Amino acid sequence: MIRLALNTATTRRQWDLREAIEGCQRHGFTAIAPWRDQVEALGVGNTARSIRDAGLEVTGYCRGGMFPAATATLRKAAIHDNQRMISQAAEIGAPVLVLVCGGLVEGSRDLAGARQMVEDGIASIMDEARSAGVRLAIEPLHPMQAADRSCINTLDQALALCDRLDPDTSGLVGVAIDAYHLWWDPQLETQLQRAGSNRLMGFHLCDWLVPTRHLVTDRGMMGDGVIDLPGMADSMRRAGYDGTAEVEIFSDHWWSRPADEVMKVCRQRAAPILDHLHHPS
Amino acid sequence: MIRLALNTATTRRQWDLREAIEGCQRHGFTAIAPWRDQVEALGVGNTARSIRDAGLEVTGYCRGGMFPAATATLRKAAIHDNQRMISQAAEIGAPVLVLVCGGLVEGSRDLAGARQMVEDGIASIMDEARSAGVRLAIEPLHPMQAADRSCINTLDQALALCDRLDPDTSGLVGVAIDAYHLWWDPQLETQLQRAGSNRLMGFHLCDWLVPTRHLVTDRGMMGDGVIDLPGMADSMRRAGYDGTAEVEIFSDHWWSRPADEVMKVCRQRAAPILDHLHHPS
Repeated sequence: MIRLALNTATTRRQWDLREAIEGCQRHGFTAIAPWRDQVEALGVGNTARSIRDAGLEVTGYCRGGMFPAATATLRKAAIHDNQRMISQAAEIGAPVLVLVCGGLVEGSRDLAGARQMVEDGIASIMDEARSAGVRLAIEPLHPMQAADRSCINTLDQALALCDRLDPDTSGLVGVAIDAYHLWWDPQLETQLQRAGSNRLMGFHLCDWLVPTRHLVTDRGMMGDGVIDLPGMADSMRRAGYDGTAEVEIFSDHWWSRPADEVMKVCRQRAAPILDHLHHPS
Repeated sequence: MIRLALNTATTRRQWDLREAIEGCQRHGFTAIAPWRDQVEALGVGNTARSIRDAGLEVTGYCRGGMFPAATATLRKAAIHDNQRMISQAAEIGAPVLVLVCGGLVEGSRDLAGARQMVEDGIASIMDEARSAGVRLAIEPLHPMQAADRSCINTLDQALALCDRLDPDTSGLVGVAIDAYHLWWDPQLETQLQRAGSNRLMGFHLCDWLVPTRHLVTDRGMMGDGVIDLPGMADSMRRAGYDGTAEVEIFSDHWWSRPADEVMKVCRQRAAPILDHLHHPS
């Protein structure tokens, strides 16, 4: 067993959710982070039962967010959609709903406006999240995805949002740290310490390839790229994170490989990083 | 005439430097920012004469930098190379050497180490720059180019470097602002004001396309993407920048078009942005 979660995006072309759950058991992963399309395909109740029966932890439910929209009606629909996801998260035992916040409104260049819509959107779902016992993890995305996936692009920015939304640091709103999105940030170490244990709600692993051939689907397997993942794990540990790490690799290459091979390589490559995350050397 | 520079990267597949100089005259551009390979192909003396005879301003010489390297010998070679570029810049009448600082050392994951090499490298060429009357413009590059082109990725980071290298704000070290690299930054406005007129040494225009299909060669023509370029020009003006803007488009698409067409479209699309840059509304 290894204290590692499979984010099901990693095997989404090979496995449905039931296969992914079985794969986690077979390869000794202790946790899973399922995506909504696969959860709904299996059924929320069935998902909850299958994960529980398999004895897996759920690290997070992917993904809420996508708040910016052109009209008030559409923004309200996005909020309702997030509220449904909160109740699904609670049902499948996910402690955290991961928020990919959304980019510019289509046809708009108003980045500040989109950022305000994200803040308003998260503010609108906090009551449901609190009642359901589901925490909200803002995932800052790489600046190259600012236009189309998320206008929240640095940890500093995400934490400023947390400060405004949850000034008492109740632990309801926090951040998911994805190595791929944040490795380049000169402020990373400082901002991780600022976040602290109460706001660090996830640690996603993959690697940055050189060259990178596609902005979304060319992430690397840990060790194949340039990110100092053991160093980042040290920073996470020092900042107070003691949760499970999660492998999340969007990759045309790894989607073309047999999923059992992917799981084996993930496990092997993650092990030394998890050592840094869980055991001070 | 339009107070606009052609960065010759924009037409590098179609035109040599002599053709680019003639193109600027023909299309009423007032300035040019040449790249070293084309300058050396034409000869530094010939370049200086041709630009002077054409009555063009030089906004900057592209590009110095690329400081990180695996050995002290290689780092010294990079410094010598930058010193040669400073003297070439002076000879062609470029007030500014643009620095694309360099990424990780090949095979290394030490981002902090690379950043230190950049700082040491710039420190090593400041005397030559001062003597030659050539200013050094650090160009922060988009975080997606942190590994292979520049480990200086935000304006905040570049200005912190300026603060350490030139604490008296003598104007010797500053920044080149490229819309493509910085548009996403939540701190952009604040950091532009922090930079101020003494450190703002260039304003490069192009646009961010959605989707972006290549990390280097899929930049957009102004107006074809999502960057609020008039808004950014307003911010530059308010921060005290009163220099010439420069079109710099790395684009497989625009490289495949006749260069006269490219110049015409650049001019047309830049005009309303320049209005914002040079005239408070």
